[in-house]
Amino acid sequence: MKSYIKPNKSAWLNLCERAQIEKSQLTDVVSAILDDVNKNKDEALYKYAKSLDNVSLDSLEVSQQEIEEAKTQVSADLKSAIDVARNNITTFHKAQQEDVKVVETTKGVSCWRKSVGIEKVGLYIPGGSAPLFSTILMLAIPAQIAGCKEIVLCTPPNTEGKINPVILYTANLVGVTKIFKSGGAQAVGAMAFGTETIPQVYKIFGPGNQYVTKAKELVQQQGVAIDMPAGPSEVLVIADDTCNPSFVAADLLSQAEHGPDSQVILLTDNENVLNEISKEVAEQLAKLPRKEIATLAMNNSRAILLNSIDECIDFSNIYAPEHLIIASENSAYFIDKITNAGSVFLGNYSCESAGDYASGTNHTLPTYGYAKNYSGVSLDSFVKKITFQKLTSEGIKNIGPAIELMAEAEGLEAHKNAVTLRLQSI
Amino acid sequence: MKSYIKPNKSAWLNLCERAQIEKSQLTDVVSAILDDVNKNKDEALYKYAKSLDNVSLDSLEVSQQEIEEAKTQVSADLKSAIDVARNNITTFHKAQQEDVKVVETTKGVSCWRKSVGIEKVGLYIPGGSAPLFSTILMLAIPAQIAGCKEIVLCTPPNTEGKINPVILYTANLVGVTKIFKSGGAQAVGAMAFGTETIPQVYKIFGPGNQYVTKAKELVQQQGVAIDMPAGPSEVLVIADDTCNPSFVAADLLSQAEHGPDSQVILLTDNENVLNEISKEVAEQLAKLPRKEIATLAMNNSRAILLNSIDECIDFSNIYAPEHLIIASENSAYFIDKITNAGSVFLGNYSCESAGDYASGTNHTLPTYGYAKNYSGVSLDSFVKKITFQKLTSEGIKNIGPAIELMAEAEGLEAHKNAVTLRLQSI
Repeated sequence: MKSYIKPNKSAWLNLCERAQIEKSQLTDVVSAILDDVNKNKDEALYKYAKSLDNVSLDSLEVSQQEIEEAKTQVSADLKSAIDVARNNITTFHKAQQEDVKVVETTKGVSCWRKSVGIEKVGLYIPGGSAPLFSTILMLAIPAQIAGCKEIVLCTPPNTEGKINPVILYTANLVGVTKIFKSGGAQAVGAMAFGTETIPQVYKIFGPGNQYVTKAKELVQQQGVAIDMPAGPSEVLVIADDTCNPSFVAADLLSQAEHGPDSQVILLTDNENVLNEISKEVAEQLAKLPRKEIATLAMNNSRAILLNSIDECIDFSNIYAPEHLIIASENSAYFIDKITNAGSVFLGNYSCESAGDYASGTNHTLPTYGYAKNYSGVSLDSFVKKITFQKLTSEGIKNIGPAIELMAEAEGLEAHKNAVTLRLQSI
Repeated sequence: MKSYIKPNKSAWLNLCERAQIEKSQLTDVVSAILDDVNKNKDEALYKYAKSLDNVSLDSLEVSQQEIEEAKTQVSADLKSAIDVARNNITTFHKAQQEDVKVVETTKGVSCWRKSVGIEKVGLYIPGGSAPLFSTILMLAIPAQIAGCKEIVLCTPPNTEGKINPVILYTANLVGVTKIFKSGGAQAVGAMAFGTETIPQVYKIFGPGNQYVTKAKELVQQQGVAIDMPAGPSEVLVIADDTCNPSFVAADLLSQAEHGPDSQVILLTDNENVLNEISKEVAEQLAKLPRKEIATLAMNNSRAILLNSIDECIDFSNIYAPEHLIIASENSAYFIDKITNAGSVFLGNYSCESAGDYASGTNHTLPTYGYAKNYSGVSLDSFVKKITFQKLTSEGIKNIGPAIELMAEAEGLEAHKNAVTLRLQSI
């Protein structure tokens, strides 16, 4: 962790910079994969499974038998833990449901919105050593509450053509309708265009490597919605003299273990706190199984001493962190001052891990400064809000003359005429 | 209007097709403009004003004096009409504000969301013969309710360097903070990157020609959010034997006058209704000032007789229209069956013009089938919803063990450790 002692405000923008992401590099290779999948469909998916995932698949779709087997392979303890998370995530996302509220804007003019689930959604879950079943909870639970009819999941199989049983167990538990053994850009293409086996979906969610990210960006330009733009995960902690340095160090490291490109920022108004946390980081880091990864991330991380807590908040709002931890006993002071953040963890017992897994909030959040203009995934992400309006004859009498004048001023006589004919008929 | 009598379901997908939009054509020319604006800023804007808009500007920003002059040039009648619209749009969008609702998902674990306005937003308003002041109401009113601090508007000036007074009057009325004389892709670039004069914004809204649309698509890939992807405007009307054929014809034509690429679709279960509406269309069309444009659009439009009203609804859900008019006295029957639409107009008095101007609903809506996966503009479009959580020591005791198990199963020991340290301390 590199320390910065009371940097000038003119230096803040530099300290807020993320690592550059090379954007255009992969366009050609990913475009070629997407075109291939669009044209050759399942055949292309089997081919890429062989060439990229090193596996000869008999079938793309996970069978009911494989799901039943998976259920027997997950421990009862882990199942109970998943239930704790599932209940809290369900409770929090159900509370985001909106009642239909009819608003009479003028006598005889009733307007309202109705949320309708996006009919078909696709979830991408990365493969690799760690089975990210928590992300399935975060995506499929709100999809199910929203009433999405088709919830498709793609994830790459291992070289034996198998998918981690916890992935299968969790997906089945929370209403995923179909699970496919396909990964990378080709899986994104399959969900975007549809194949003989994999249904076309209208919106694609989920994390992935740079190929997956690029594929999502490219299919978005072809009309498929995506959850949000992606970047490396990050945390910013504001710690004051009421923090627990050992907790803060653990939180910084839990972000750092995600990957070498994870970004970790500590802000404080107290030099002792900065020093104690740095010492704790060094001690805890040495004991971590993923210490190589975490060390690389910590090398890019910044511990910054500022003049006051208000300066820390200002800095954080400029940085717009994905995760913001307020390591303070006085966290209430911060709430109304936070303007840019994905998810905020208030007080010494609210570790990021809680929101990553089981408190109920969503862990799919805007990274890379996108918290300035994007929200994290929520129930909203899985619905369209359709507006309705109904005018009575009294309603059109009340607002019709205003519409006629405005339409005329915009030079749209047919718009005016649609009102005039109605007013004349009353 | 081309008629189709009881087409087979196998033909529906073809009948739902939109005109092809050539996507890649403009990428090079628009990219060059964006790069130029990013590099040369105001200088590039003055240059394009001269070369593309044929005007030598003294200043990019509209002065307070110009706004004061504009106020004297708008008629009292039009001001009153704008007030009717403003009040209704304000009422409907204010009703979309969400109270903070704290959810205790588990004892000691409190989670909530808070909506915070996107700090800086940019509105693009096209130039041309018709001053689209109604779109300013639709974008700036929710921006102001959301609490956006900077609301920037760009619109091209005429060859005398002036902007239509109704545009200036309306923008000033509804809280636009700065108005700039700049149009086309260069204006989008200015708001995306910022110039010496025009502030950088985090999200760009508003309609425009193909250059503007392409520019929005390209800056989105660089991290600037946009309202939604764009396509030609469209209406679908479902009419039964309780409709008023003359009203329906007027509604179809009010869509057709938007432009030659507007799409107009009529569905009915009654052949007489189809014939009467077609006759009315021909009669009303002949009298319209914009009949050349409307005729071109009507040539691409479709009047389709289906076997039942339920079939009409099924067809409409596949088409996913921007505007859906239910021309029927029994419109309540339809409401729960509509799954894909931008905005729905129920009954014979609810003309599209009402929603275009003054009922209160937003007229910035998903076109081109995007109603399957996107919502229209609403208050949501101008805020980020930040999640908060606060765990007490009891809270972490209650969910901590589940988090430890899940983090371990995902191979993330540092995530587990952040919980373990806290549990040990209690």
